[in-house]
Amino acid sequence: MNAGLLLDLYELTMAQSYFVYKAKTRATFDLFVRALPRQRSYLIACGLADVLDYIRDLRFRQDDLRYLRSKKLFSAEFLKYLERFRFRGDIWAMPEGTVFFPPEPVIRVTGSIIEAQLIESFLLSTLNLQTMIASKASRVVNASEGRGVYDFSLRRTQGTEAAIKVARSSYIAGFAGTSNVLASKLYGIPASGTMAHSFVMSFKQELASFLAYSSIFPARTILLVDTYDTGKGIANAIAVGLYLKEQGHKLLGIRLDSGDIAYWSKLARRMLDKAGLKYVKIFASGNLDEAAIQELLRKGAPVDNFGVGTKMGVSVDAPFLDMIYKISEVTDEEGNFLPTMKLSEGKITYPGRKQVFRVQDKTGRFVKDILGLEAEKLAGKRLLVKVVDKGTIVSEPSCPQEIRRSVQKGLLRFALAMRQPLSGYRYPVEVSRGLASLRSSLSRQLAKRQNG
Amino acid sequence: MNAGLLLDLYELTMAQSYFVYKAKTRATFDLFVRALPRQRSYLIACGLADVLDYIRDLRFRQDDLRYLRSKKLFSAEFLKYLERFRFRGDIWAMPEGTVFFPPEPVIRVTGSIIEAQLIESFLLSTLNLQTMIASKASRVVNASEGRGVYDFSLRRTQGTEAAIKVARSSYIAGFAGTSNVLASKLYGIPASGTMAHSFVMSFKQELASFLAYSSIFPARTILLVDTYDTGKGIANAIAVGLYLKEQGHKLLGIRLDSGDIAYWSKLARRMLDKAGLKYVKIFASGNLDEAAIQELLRKGAPVDNFGVGTKMGVSVDAPFLDMIYKISEVTDEEGNFLPTMKLSEGKITYPGRKQVFRVQDKTGRFVKDILGLEAEKLAGKRLLVKVVDKGTIVSEPSCPQEIRRSVQKGLLRFALAMRQPLSGYRYPVEVSRGLASLRSSLSRQLAKRQNG
Repeated sequence: MNAGLLLDLYELTMAQSYFVYKAKTRATFDLFVRALPRQRSYLIACGLADVLDYIRDLRFRQDDLRYLRSKKLFSAEFLKYLERFRFRGDIWAMPEGTVFFPPEPVIRVTGSIIEAQLIESFLLSTLNLQTMIASKASRVVNASEGRGVYDFSLRRTQGTEAAIKVARSSYIAGFAGTSNVLASKLYGIPASGTMAHSFVMSFKQELASFLAYSSIFPARTILLVDTYDTGKGIANAIAVGLYLKEQGHKLLGIRLDSGDIAYWSKLARRMLDKAGLKYVKIFASGNLDEAAIQELLRKGAPVDNFGVGTKMGVSVDAPFLDMIYKISEVTDEEGNFLPTMKLSEGKITYPGRKQVFRVQDKTGRFVKDILGLEAEKLAGKRLLVKVVDKGTIVSEPSCPQEIRRSVQKGLLRFALAMRQPLSGYRYPVEVSRGLASLRSSLSRQLAKRQNG
Repeated sequence: MNAGLLLDLYELTMAQSYFVYKAKTRATFDLFVRALPRQRSYLIACGLADVLDYIRDLRFRQDDLRYLRSKKLFSAEFLKYLERFRFRGDIWAMPEGTVFFPPEPVIRVTGSIIEAQLIESFLLSTLNLQTMIASKASRVVNASEGRGVYDFSLRRTQGTEAAIKVARSSYIAGFAGTSNVLASKLYGIPASGTMAHSFVMSFKQELASFLAYSSIFPARTILLVDTYDTGKGIANAIAVGLYLKEQGHKLLGIRLDSGDIAYWSKLARRMLDKAGLKYVKIFASGNLDEAAIQELLRKGAPVDNFGVGTKMGVSVDAPFLDMIYKISEVTDEEGNFLPTMKLSEGKITYPGRKQVFRVQDKTGRFVKDILGLEAEKLAGKRLLVKVVDKGTIVSEPSCPQEIRRSVQKGLLRFALAMRQPLSGYRYPVEVSRGLASLRSSLSRQLAKRQNG
């Protein structure tokens, strides 16, 4: 990955200014989400594996340096510095799959102010996408109440890299598989697929297309029944199911992709059962999200598996998170700590080197989080763990399968209402006394300092 | 690019079925948008350059084939076929930067039914993102009425690949530059940047941070004035501007990123002018989109340049296009043409090998498009041109700079109302007599065929 230049120009111009004025200054930055999107009760941390790859490989190659030189913005000394650049700082992070809430830091970076600033945009872009998708996908999983949900979003994600990350993030959140073959290969996610309308349309008769496909994949056939007339499509699928049965095979399923899915799935279930094809599963797809799935289940639609594409794949109701990366502490050349915060209208931040403490009751149920200072001794599990120590990765990421299991287990320890997609549940996040007092004293200091 | 497996599993399983039953069948597919998103009057075709790279490089590598073999889904003969696979079909496309409307095909693919199907997901994912962004960005450009607009979206796009494509797509649509250094390098887009709040906060005094930055970039400094108290920030910027002036330099600008931008920009303009700094430009950023920009201009905010991030970078009000890839014609083994279409509820498509004819009046103004058949002789410019002939690229894409100019010129030939972001203007797209009659006769045939 040539990621050196994956940054905003100002990160480089600020870096050159720091190089001149603050080469020895160290700083701490927090990556966090300012506020939950409407209709989210929690977020699931995702993307750290890619951040660690980035940190490991980050450097400026000769062609990057040539390009920067051509801009006539940077000094020879600074370019020399970039040539030798490696990330040497510390990173604390919530492990992937951790449930979290605003304004808890998901990642905390401490390093030279230059290196901590240079990685900003990559970290934000990566965490924003994957956390957003895992959080949306988790809602879809909750809505599906134990049925299988499959990622069908490749064609509608915001590019192909996004598609691969969506497959991984949604799998971590509990999806059962993906249609995306490359993602399946890269992450060991089960690959899933049915057939397209074009397949049916390329034959003169729907039935001929069903027979052709099932002859090649007798044990893996899911027939798409809505290309022409859904009722006749179901009847054709039943004919093929009975034919396969005679041959000693089982038709895996039928797929409904349009129309009134509740109506058609009920009819299909009745017709299939009556024909002795109780084992044939019903798949539904087409514009599904957590609300549509809940509505189908409310209507009693006997759907066994859902294919979910676009609306999850771009997190359509919240296509970005209000995720930011803010400086919280500076250690100047003389070694003085200087906690810091922003005072601009509506955008005030929390100062200091922070930690998140998750408090549980006697039964192991999570009852609240406390946003405090790393130095504080508070009850509760510390959610930020050290993953990079002086530039070296000290905590290898888990595999997606393991993260997926930890998400499923972790979510069960929160109140049930949090997992109900439309409940509007809010989990309590408190600010520790130490942090609150640091914030108010700093607020007064800063105002004075800027006035003085 | 290892793009061979960037596809949905069903494209491979259908391909194996075609390999057995329809190895000689050829097909035509249309890539098109079914309907405009709300608040869009037109779309700008974007993404073809990446499609051509993909077509050129598309193959299945040994590790891809090993992976597919491990799935135990595919025959040895079919894997052998994939090993030798190259795209050998024809592709017709609207050049990047072409203004278009639903349901006009942007890309038309004719080839063996296997190859035409295998490229589906990549084409959709690529065109969807870039067309969506170019179309959104074009609205922002229109709203800005000639002021400079800069892409600041890297940190909030759906991943870093999306960020690079957003920078290119928005530049094509008329943006003046991007903060994204890698995109700037890759596509020759002007790179732009100011400073972050963290830079200001890393100094004890705002003024000290301004002086430090401007000493390094005396001719390129844009000061961010809203970290603490915006009024004082402007005063500090003026002090630095006057100091630079004494040294024979010009402060480039100030940036407002929060609060009431209309109020602060008016105040800043007055203060700057009074101090003899008329040449200092005002940049605005923070949650901007076409509506916010129009509102600022309506209020008379003297902003010279806009930095636009998230809302453009994810096309927040329409984060996907209803873009599909549909089979429209099949030529079977005996060489019989079989135009084809889908009849499912609400999803009917147009059959046949189509062309888009753009009709102009005597003054050169575009007055309507006609969606017709390639074989028809109709007035108007044909928008789909051949870009791939039997697998060979026959029309190299233009550079982004050239496409950008063609977009600016092209848009001027449509009615003014189309470029007004909130006008709700609808450009007329007619269906030719030939296509209409093919569609209705086929509709009858298909219903009969499925019944019979």
